[in-house]
Amino acid sequence: MTTEPPLLLVLDLIGTFAFGLNGALTAVRAAQLDIVGVVTLGVITALGGGIIRDVLLGDVPPATLRDWRYLALAVLGGLVAFALSQWLDRLEMSINVLDAVGLSVFAVIGASKAVAFGLGVGPAVILGAVTGVGGGTIRDTLVRQVPSVLRSDLYAIPALLAAALTVGAIHLGIYGLWAALAAAAICFAVRMLGVVLGLNAPRPRGARPASDGG
Amino acid sequence: MTTEPPLLLVLDLIGTFAFGLNGALTAVRAAQLDIVGVVTLGVITALGGGIIRDVLLGDVPPATLRDWRYLALAVLGGLVAFALSQWLDRLEMSINVLDAVGLSVFAVIGASKAVAFGLGVGPAVILGAVTGVGGGTIRDTLVRQVPSVLRSDLYAIPALLAAALTVGAIHLGIYGLWAALAAAAICFAVRMLGVVLGLNAPRPRGARPASDGG
Amino acid sequence: MTTEPPLLLVLDLIGTFAFGLNGALTAVRAAQLDIVGVVTLGVITALGGGIIRDVLLGDVPPATLRDWRYLALAVLGGLVAFALSQWLDRLEMSINVLDAVGLSVFAVIGASKAVAFGLGVGPAVILGAVTGVGGGTIRDTLVRQVPSVLRSDLYAIPALLAAALTVGAIHLGIYGLWAALAAAAICFAVRMLGVVLGLNAPRPRGARPASDGG
Repeated sequence: MTTEPPLLLVLDLIGTFAFGLNGALTAVRAAQLDIVGVVTLGVITALGGGIIRDVLLGDVPPATLRDWRYLALAVLGGLVAFALSQWLDRLEMSINVLDAVGLSVFAVIGASKAVAFGLGVGPAVILGAVTGVGGGTIRDTLVRQVPSVLRSDLYAIPALLAAALTVGAIHLGIYGLWAALAAAAICFAVRMLGVVLGLNAPRPRGARPASDGG
Repeated sequence: MTTEPPLLLVLDLIGTFAFGLNGALTAVRAAQLDIVGVVTLGVITALGGGIIRDVLLGDVPPATLRDWRYLALAVLGGLVAFALSQWLDRLEMSINVLDAVGLSVFAVIGASKAVAFGLGVGPAVILGAVTGVGGGTIRDTLVRQVPSVLRSDLYAIPALLAAALTVGAIHLGIYGLWAALAAAAICFAVRMLGVVLGLNAPRPRGARPASDGG
Repeated sequence: MTTEPPLLLVLDLIGTFAFGLNGALTAVRAAQLDIVGVVTLGVITALGGGIIRDVLLGDVPPATLRDWRYLALAVLGGLVAFALSQWLDRLEMSINVLDAVGLSVFAVIGASKAVAFGLGVGPAVILGAVTGVGGGTIRDTLVRQVPSVLRSDLYAIPALLAAALTVGAIHLGIYGLWAALAAAAICFAVRMLGVVLGLNAPRPRGARPASDGG
C-alpha cells in the first residue's frame, strides 16, 4: 500500500485490527469455536477483503501477506476478542462499531487502490465495496449465516458510498488524507445510523414477511 | 474476450443478464433480502463464474470488471428481478430457463478462453464447467443452500458436456460461432431435460434415502 | 512443483488422492448427492487448497490445472469413494485418516512453495496451513457444515505446526525429503491424536456450552 499516505496505512491497520476483533467476537457469538477457531475467524475477517481485492487486481502475493503487520494485528484482534469473550453480552454494540470501522476504512482504501491499478469508475467502486464487505461475507458464510451484505440494515450502501466518494475525489484531483477520512466517516455514519435505527432498504413484494432468511 | 467472435460477446452479455436476473430471483425466493441484497446476489451470480475463470487464468483484473457492460447488465438483471418479484410464483420455470442459458453460454466461453490461455484438454473442460456453475454455486452458498452443482438434476454434466464439445471443436479446428452455439444449445437442452423430467445421475448406495441434504 | 524433490511430488499426488477420496466420502455422509456431486466434491476438496495457494502466490494457472495427474487422481478418488459408499459406516476412521494425510502433506508443500515464492516466515506458515485446510474448508462450506478448521479437534494447529517446521527447516538449510516427511509425520500424529482423544483447544468463556455450532 505504498501508494497511500502514511496516515491511511495507519487507518488500514486500524481497520485490520477492528475486523480481527469483530470477526473473532462473531465467532464466539455465532458458533461453538475453540481459541484456534476464534482467532482463525478473526484473521479471515480481517484479511479476507484485502486478499480478494489484491487477487482481483493481480497484486499477488496480497499486501496483507507481504506486510507482517496486517497478520500480526489480525491475530492480536482475535486474541483480545478471546480474552474478552466472557463479557460478550455487553459487547454487542462494540461488535457493530468495529465492523463499521473496518467496512469504512477498507472500502476507501480498496477503491483508491483499484483506481491506482487502472480500473474504471464503476468497477473501482464495486471493488472498493467488495474490499469492505469481503472479509465479513466470508466470516458469515463460514459460520452459516446469510451474509450481512445480503440481508441487512444498510450494509452494502455505505460501502458503495464510501467507494464512490473516494473514486470521485480521485477523479476530481482532491483525494488525500482528508478526503479519505471524510469518505470513511460518511460511510461509518450511514452504517451506524442503519444499525441504531434498524433501517433496511426496500424489500421485494412477494417475499415472505418475517424471520431471518434461509 | 477479444478472442471471441462478436456474436459470442453478445451471447456472453446475454448470459450475464440471464444470471443477474436468475440470481436476484433466487434471492427473493430463498432468503429475506432487501433490494440491495437482491441486486448484489444477482451481480455475484452473473459475474462470479467469469471472475473465478479469469483469476485462475491470471487474466486480472477480470474481464467482467474491465468491461462496464457486464456489470451494467448484471445490475440491470437484478433490478428487473426486483421489479418482477411480486409475480414470483409464476416465475419458477423462468428461473430455471435463465439459469440454463447462463450455464450453457458461460461453459462454452469459459472453455474457449481456457484453451486460448494454454490449458490442456482436461483442465480446459473443467475450467469451462467451473465458469458455468461458479456464479450459481457462490449464490447458493451465500443463501445457505447446497449448491445445484452438487445436488441436482443434471447440472454439472451439461456444463462439462458443453465445455468438452467446445474444447473438442477447437482442437479439430472447427470452432467458431456455429460450433459455440451448437455446444451451448446441447448443454441447454440436456439441462432443461433434467429440469423437466427431474432426472438425476445415480446416487451412491448407503446414502440416506430422502430429504434435502445437510 | 519443480522446486520439490520427486518424492515430494509423489507425496503431493498421494495427498490429492486422499483428499479426493475423503471429500467424496464426506459428500456421501453429509448430503444427498448423486455421483456427479460426489465426485465434484472430491475434486474440490483435493484441488481447493492448492488452487488457493497458487492464486495467492500468483502462480496461475494453478499447478493442479497444468499437471493432468492432479485432476486425474482427484477424480479417481471420487469414483473410488462412490463405489465404496455402501460400506460407509465402516469408513469413519478411514475418512479421518485420509483427511489427516492430505492435511499434513499439503501444509508442508504449501509452506515450501510459499518460501520459494518469496513470502516471509509468518505469511509462509499461514499459506502452508491454508493449503492444508483450504480444500476441506470449501468442502464443509458447500455441504453446509461449520468447517473443521474452525470447530475441531486440533485441526488448524497441526497444519500450522507442519508449515512452521517446514519454513524453519528451509531457513536452517536442512529442508529436503526427510525434513518434509518428518514435518508431515508430526502434523499427522498430532491431528490423529486430536481425533482419537477428541481433544480441543480451549474454548472461550461466555460461549454457550454444547451443541454443534450455528
